Amino acid sequence: MKKMISLLVHNRPGVLSHVAGLITRRGYNVESIAAGLTENATRTRISLVVSGDEWELSQVTKQLSKLIDCIEARDIKYSEAVIGEVALVNLDVEPERRPEIMTLVNTFGMRIADLDNNTLILQVVGSTHLVDMILNGLAPYRIKTIARTGLVVLPSERCEKQEHFL
Amino acid sequence: MKKMISLLVHNRPGVLSHVAGLITRRGYNVESIAAGLTENATRTRISLVVSGDEWELSQVTKQLSKLIDCIEARDIKYSEAVIGEVALVNLDVEPERRPEIMTLVNTFGMRIADLDNNTLILQVVGSTHLVDMILNGLAPYRIKTIARTGLVVLPSERCEKQEHFL
Repeated sequence: MKKMISLLVHNRPGVLSHVAGLITRRGYNVESIAAGLTENATRTRISLVVSGDEWELSQVTKQLSKLIDCIEARDIKYSEAVIGEVALVNLDVEPERRPEIMTLVNTFGMRIADLDNNTLILQVVGSTHLVDMILNGLAPYRIKTIARTGLVVLPSERCEKQEHFL
Repeated sequence: MKKMISLLVHNRPGVLSHVAGLITRRGYNVESIAAGLTENATRTRISLVVSGDEWELSQVTKQLSKLIDCIEARDIKYSEAVIGEVALVNLDVEPERRPEIMTLVNTFGMRIADLDNNTLILQVVGSTHLVDMILNGLAPYRIKTIARTGLVVLPSERCEKQEHFL
């Protein structure tokens, strides 16, 4: 089972280490983490995807919310979230095969981030599902390296309102 | 001073905690972190932006490379890297002011990720410089929340080759 958690924390040295330490001590596995500044320079928003069994995962958000530097810890449901992720994919492609790749690039709205004789770095943006699908589509080509940011999530207020009607 | 570091690590529970612990013990401050799976499911690539003084920063990559789960630790120069970052920006905008925002959205190639009565969530993608600039341009509007993934970096092979001629 997987869970998305959005944390708002004070931007102090050590806060990441406390978050990571808590998760490790409890034996959860972090599938991805993305931490960056927010609208307030003293705060950092951390988006986590954590895997484990159902009971364990029901505890993790509660435990994170007790950390001294934690301002807010919140479970985010996939259906109620706005999600973004970037992947950079370094492909080994001979110039003759570039047109094939370009078809995929245009179809999926990718961007070419770097181009050299036999190298093409693509930037892929979207939900995890979309990024996974595109990486799958690129699998027949020689993928040298992939770097993914991990998910960043914001709760969608529209979905929160809808929930009252369900 | 800031430094970008690209780490390739074994995807084991606890590895993030070791990385974060080392950085905290040495007193570095992590500006952003992005960790996600790679082309090999047993490996995770972590992109870090760390701040500190010049001497300290010259040591951090060396120390990270000594971690037991570290496969590769590499300094990345801004001029030699392909960089990506996603920011989600939640704006409080009355419907009458939407057209103004749409001009910015189209000019900077942003995407509308969510739309409700007074709420607009924008997805911004690009280098840190570009994302900062766009957030600056959005500052006159009421920004409710921002979530950024932190940088993900891949070294550009084209730039590595160019270096030999400099």
